[in-house]
Amino acid sequence: MSKIITISREFGSGGREIGKRLADELGFLYYDQEIIKEICKETGMHEGYVEGVAEKAISLISTQFGHTFYNQQQIDVLVSQQKIILDLAKRGDCVIVGHGCAEILADLEPFSIFVYASMEAKVARCRTKGPEEEKLTEKELIRKIKDVDKNRKKVHEMIAPTRWGEKENYDLCINTTHVKIKRIIPGVAMYANEYFENK
Amino acid sequence: MSKIITISREFGSGGREIGKRLADELGFLYYDQEIIKEICKETGMHEGYVEGVAEKAISLISTQFGHTFYNQQQIDVLVSQQKIILDLAKRGDCVIVGHGCAEILADLEPFSIFVYASMEAKVARCRTKGPEEEKLTEKELIRKIKDVDKNRKKVHEMIAPTRWGEKENYDLCINTTHVKIKRIIPGVAMYANEYFENK
Repeated sequence: MSKIITISREFGSGGREIGKRLADELGFLYYDQEIIKEICKETGMHEGYVEGVAEKAISLISTQFGHTFYNQQQIDVLVSQQKIILDLAKRGDCVIVGHGCAEILADLEPFSIFVYASMEAKVARCRTKGPEEEKLTEKELIRKIKDVDKNRKKVHEMIAPTRWGEKENYDLCINTTHVKIKRIIPGVAMYANEYFENK
Repeated sequence: MSKIITISREFGSGGREIGKRLADELGFLYYDQEIIKEICKETGMHEGYVEGVAEKAISLISTQFGHTFYNQQQIDVLVSQQKIILDLAKRGDCVIVGHGCAEILADLEPFSIFVYASMEAKVARCRTKGPEEEKLTEKELIRKIKDVDKNRKKVHEMIAPTRWGEKENYDLCINTTHVKIKRIIPGVAMYANEYFENK
């Protein structure tokens, strides 16, 4: 069975960087944007729309009177995402970032990581890493960080009975506020290897 | 300034073992029961009582009509504990387990770890490690695990504005459910070293 590492993360906490570097360190395959591309192929939908639903959707999922409504296209994207993630996980040892991967792959017992950071650290990281975020004011950026995570929480709750970001659902929770991501990778990789040894 | 690692943990999750092994691995001093002994010396109170208040107190802190009451002796123990932990932290690089250490030492920027596990894993661990727990039924043991943690949460809330066990308050949260503690230590030690390098 493949060794699978799932990375769930708060927006701006550096989860994607941890995923990429961890895949490099361990010689694992790495999936993130590839998932969006595969969903587009399968559903014939536009990349921007798919990405919106599967990942960043702030306004696509509408809430009225405390209830959340999804349209058929949104549901198609989420169903396709689930199928594609299960397929990718069978191709070999891999790191998968986002897309509810920890929940979708739970039966395959992945090593599941949650990455988080203080709001201050996330704002600072978005400023240096995200060209889109450069134009936003501090207040707008904080609003965006909160909105993206609120949506990830919603998507998570559509596909799993657990609560997004609750440590009990993950094997290791990494706070990137006071560390350099590049430098913690060898320790995390060593830890992940021990998890797989023990399976 | 000393390098300080604090270990907060759920009862039965193996936090103490992580603390001891991490101290050995890094050549750091290790404090846990020593704190109780020092409080006894300072306050002249009996070890069983001090341990009860500072750590295990299930019935010592009384709750009535939703309010929690503390007597003067209990407050003396908690004040003394705070002073002693601050003193110990100045003596050299160390690992401190429990006693609200992460909160008491927050200003010294310790590398703070929270250790947790599934209830099933905690019950299994208590059965093999705790001679006191051997006599309890499954139901009694689960009750004990919940009561001890409930009390740790209460003591935490007396001394800190944060919530006990919430990942945001810690640098690394370790789920011991699916790993062998002995074997994850090198990875955790490497991670901790990077944290201190970055300070």
